[in-house]
Amino acid sequence: MDPELAALGEFGLIDLIRQRAQQRSPGTILGIGDDAALLAIPAGGGLLVTTDMLLEGIHFQWRWGRPRDLGRKAMAVNVSDIAAMGGRPLYVLLGLAIPLAGPSLTELEALLAGLEEEAATYGVTLVGGDTCSSRSGLVLAVTLLGVPPPGDAVLRSGAKPGDGLWVTGMLGGAAAGLLALELGLRPGAPWPADIARPAWLATEEEAAIQAAMTVHLTPAPRLAAGQALVGCATAMIDVSDGVASDAGHLCTESRVAARILASRIPIHAGAAAMARLTARDPLDLALRGGEDYELLFTTPADPRPTLAEIAPGLAVTRIGEVIAGQPVPWLARADGREEILAGGFDHLRVSG
Amino acid sequence: MDPELAALGEFGLIDLIRQRAQQRSPGTILGIGDDAALLAIPAGGGLLVTTDMLLEGIHFQWRWGRPRDLGRKAMAVNVSDIAAMGGRPLYVLLGLAIPLAGPSLTELEALLAGLEEEAATYGVTLVGGDTCSSRSGLVLAVTLLGVPPPGDAVLRSGAKPGDGLWVTGMLGGAAAGLLALELGLRPGAPWPADIARPAWLATEEEAAIQAAMTVHLTPAPRLAAGQALVGCATAMIDVSDGVASDAGHLCTESRVAARILASRIPIHAGAAAMARLTARDPLDLALRGGEDYELLFTTPADPRPTLAEIAPGLAVTRIGEVIAGQPVPWLARADGREEILAGGFDHLRVSG
Repeated sequence: MDPELAALGEFGLIDLIRQRAQQRSPGTILGIGDDAALLAIPAGGGLLVTTDMLLEGIHFQWRWGRPRDLGRKAMAVNVSDIAAMGGRPLYVLLGLAIPLAGPSLTELEALLAGLEEEAATYGVTLVGGDTCSSRSGLVLAVTLLGVPPPGDAVLRSGAKPGDGLWVTGMLGGAAAGLLALELGLRPGAPWPADIARPAWLATEEEAAIQAAMTVHLTPAPRLAAGQALVGCATAMIDVSDGVASDAGHLCTESRVAARILASRIPIHAGAAAMARLTARDPLDLALRGGEDYELLFTTPADPRPTLAEIAPGLAVTRIGEVIAGQPVPWLARADGREEILAGGFDHLRVSG
Repeated sequence: MDPELAALGEFGLIDLIRQRAQQRSPGTILGIGDDAALLAIPAGGGLLVTTDMLLEGIHFQWRWGRPRDLGRKAMAVNVSDIAAMGGRPLYVLLGLAIPLAGPSLTELEALLAGLEEEAATYGVTLVGGDTCSSRSGLVLAVTLLGVPPPGDAVLRSGAKPGDGLWVTGMLGGAAAGLLALELGLRPGAPWPADIARPAWLATEEEAAIQAAMTVHLTPAPRLAAGQALVGCATAMIDVSDGVASDAGHLCTESRVAARILASRIPIHAGAAAMARLTARDPLDLALRGGEDYELLFTTPADPRPTLAEIAPGLAVTRIGEVIAGQPVPWLARADGREEILAGGFDHLRVSG
């Protein structure tokens, strides 16, 4: 263990976190420093709660990015869940298990700074947590509390046959970024001398691969989009495991089927480049890669006001429609073939 | 990975947890199965939130106890935090990182059953969580939500010079139980043939060691006691790191000192026996062992109504008093010596 961290000890570290945590929210009656946090919750609407763990060796490799970015991502993936309900995040708790041969105090402070930076961006206050040691890798366990939108939370279960199926942003970037990181590329670094650089790779494709690594390391949760879609979206989910898997969840909860048009999938340019580099199908990266943290949602077939009117700056693509049938998504290929779209990321099924 | 679990997959496991989770609370508007849980919170009083992680190899060894007991403990240690505020727990979220070479589906179901059993005991509903794989040991990350008592939550910061300092139950049991488990003793099992059984060990001492292992493996949070003490206790904390450490936190937050009388410490009989067996100081186990999950609290010098009137069945011991001075606890020995009582359990300082 880092001698500076060992000298500080568990309670010294908690004190340090406590000093760092800005009491941004007037609703924090009692933050870090007691047995539990005591929080004011705006009356009437209920409470949204979500929790996500990030484990070293499973969700991230320490050497891939900066500790600051890891802190940002831990916060972002939870904000994405509140965004998918159309809600507003308010409070966060951080569980932190620190390996004995692990990060230095300086690195931990950078991680915390990243988490706070991202929290501040979304109006979230750090109110509590837990710290302990870990015999293996670093573990981050983040719990985020928020409130549903003034109307009602947007659920996974509200899609109806005839609805349009949409996605924000581009897909496959995070998966492509992961492939690039696994290959040995690094964000902001020139192409490594020990990795063969294909002759066909143009400057803009290399830039797209760089952008893909950024998506993987610091995804941007679509909070404003999620909130803007309240009252318009009939169902919504964030794309954390890939559209294949997440459209499946939406179909299951709504008891509908969906038809997704392969030709409409907005494929991230970095996914196209990495697919070519690693002899993969770019569509597969876009549909099954996961971790893009875009929003997948349904709307009435002809929403009024239109999406462009609701959220002028929102980049959205209509990728298909909701249909009646067994609750699975179908993929319609350009040649007319249709197949069940299965096989997003499953933590307990893959060996990686 | 257990083939049955691998066949089920992450989402199969989530479905299984969802089916198991009884919707006990009418406040669960939306439980497992969406991006976030949506919960009703009783109006007016605010929200209590606490989170605690349990890591294999740090907080527990898989072979020490039954998976069911581990599930119970994960719940109990969080309930203890709400108890220490005088509050009422309502909702729990479970983060579960499962090692690839880890527990079988049957063992995981037993763990979940234990967690639910304990949750039901305290009126808590499982509303959400996260599952993933782990490259090392099992990780449980539990977040518990509750409400403060109708008056006000009992904080760590309310102690005043002149107050009495009290503790519920007996101390050192959990530490003694841990020593016994590390030695190779097992709950419910006869004394192992390969461990020398000291001639002085009486049947009742062996029973006390068995009871100590039970305290370590399935601590009983003092929820009813914590609630009964609302309006009487001026400050309260649960004894998770040992009285030495936890009295220190109470002093720091209340900006007071405390004098603890060594002769008054209620030492668990199992702690006395294990101390003798391992040539340790039983008082040290009681004050620095941690994980007893008793409540340490302060009251006015002469509380009216008395504690016996408030909670007739409550086993409490007055172990000292709050005094003015630098915010540290002092230990007063029988021979008149006084020393600063330092050195409870610190996750980042110890090498175990």
